[in-house]
Amino acid sequence: MSEQKKELAVVLVSGGMDSCVVTAVAAETYRLACLHVNYGQRTERRELACFHEIVKHYDAEKALVVDLPHLAQIGGSSLTDRRIPITPSDSPGEIPPTYVPFRNANLLCVAVSWAEIIGATKIFIGAVEQDAPGYPDCRTVFYRAFNELVRVGTRPEADIEVVAPLIGMTKDEIVRRGVALRAPFHLTWSCYAQQDVPCGACDSCLLRSRAFEKAGVTDPLGTGRSRR
Amino acid sequence: MSEQKKELAVVLVSGGMDSCVVTAVAAETYRLACLHVNYGQRTERRELACFHEIVKHYDAEKALVVDLPHLAQIGGSSLTDRRIPITPSDSPGEIPPTYVPFRNANLLCVAVSWAEIIGATKIFIGAVEQDAPGYPDCRTVFYRAFNELVRVGTRPEADIEVVAPLIGMTKDEIVRRGVALRAPFHLTWSCYAQQDVPCGACDSCLLRSRAFEKAGVTDPLGTGRSRR
Repeated sequence: MSEQKKELAVVLVSGGMDSCVVTAVAAETYRLACLHVNYGQRTERRELACFHEIVKHYDAEKALVVDLPHLAQIGGSSLTDRRIPITPSDSPGEIPPTYVPFRNANLLCVAVSWAEIIGATKIFIGAVEQDAPGYPDCRTVFYRAFNELVRVGTRPEADIEVVAPLIGMTKDEIVRRGVALRAPFHLTWSCYAQQDVPCGACDSCLLRSRAFEKAGVTDPLGTGRSRR
Repeated sequence: MSEQKKELAVVLVSGGMDSCVVTAVAAETYRLACLHVNYGQRTERRELACFHEIVKHYDAEKALVVDLPHLAQIGGSSLTDRRIPITPSDSPGEIPPTYVPFRNANLLCVAVSWAEIIGATKIFIGAVEQDAPGYPDCRTVFYRAFNELVRVGTRPEADIEVVAPLIGMTKDEIVRRGVALRAPFHLTWSCYAQQDVPCGACDSCLLRSRAFEKAGVTDPLGTGRSRR
């Protein structure tokens, strides 16, 4: 079976539910090279632990953990700057305080450099446009532009393409897809604020609990119930 | 005078001659935010010292030094991997062993994230297409694609543009431009192999010495003479 998976794919695995489902999608067709980027997010310790669990779960061929200290150094986001409080954004559509400017471009560049060296031809990322009214780098147009950059900015023979298979899905569709692919949701982490028990109140916890509720699935981390 | 320079520009300052001339170009019109990225290049200590000298010389408003450890971690380039020897490339047009995949994209992403936070509207980079038969990320098409990515991947009001004012120049034209703008060439470093005295034999030393010779200018670092 695995002998037939000839091509290698880099998968950006944050440790959250979206990247877990994306890993499940990629694992269907590709050999896996899992990449985790620590950019100083508050819940990094927990997310990194989830990354290693997911790598083990899928028996990934390669795993790489990379530090990008500059995003926290530059500041401006509540996700990396502890002086800015984590609060639910009042108006959906506004750029939330967790926004890290050009974050996905920074992460994808790491993935492209690695892909070119190891000969991977696909890069999977769990971006979701539905989350995106506030995040310019979670939209389809962003990935189209990024792929054009990859095409002209890498060796012609590298033939690398970024794919975002969840981009058009709703969060509950992602949960259902993950369930169908037996994605290990129990190994994921979503909370922006805490690392032991999900806070249940940050944007990311709210999105997750609503998704599981709507999909009619029990979240193994229990945030769904705690929101009732 | 400086009161009239309203806009802030991020300038990528490696410490080499091209970025020094680009700093001189940017300083004509913009307030300066100088950015140096350490990605594990062999001559980093000397390049960083040059960066600080150039920042001081131009009295830059902001200066930021950022570590990108992953490019060396990923490997594959003689510029960051000490197991790969620095050798002159035999055939111009081939990708040289100093090539770091997608390097300029990685560096520019740092610049864009910083620019969005500090409100800079331009990002200057000293890329030169003439150096580029081997470097996919030194060509005009690359910067066109990158600017499209910036347009769709940042806040609409950020209005950031990457400019590469030397992109179409020959190396000797760059030297002449630098002389005209009184760029402090004595504060720069080009050698890929050594940090104390230029080796005079690596691709970068050869490019530099030929450029000064052709421009009829004495290189204050003396590499021109040492090549005779």
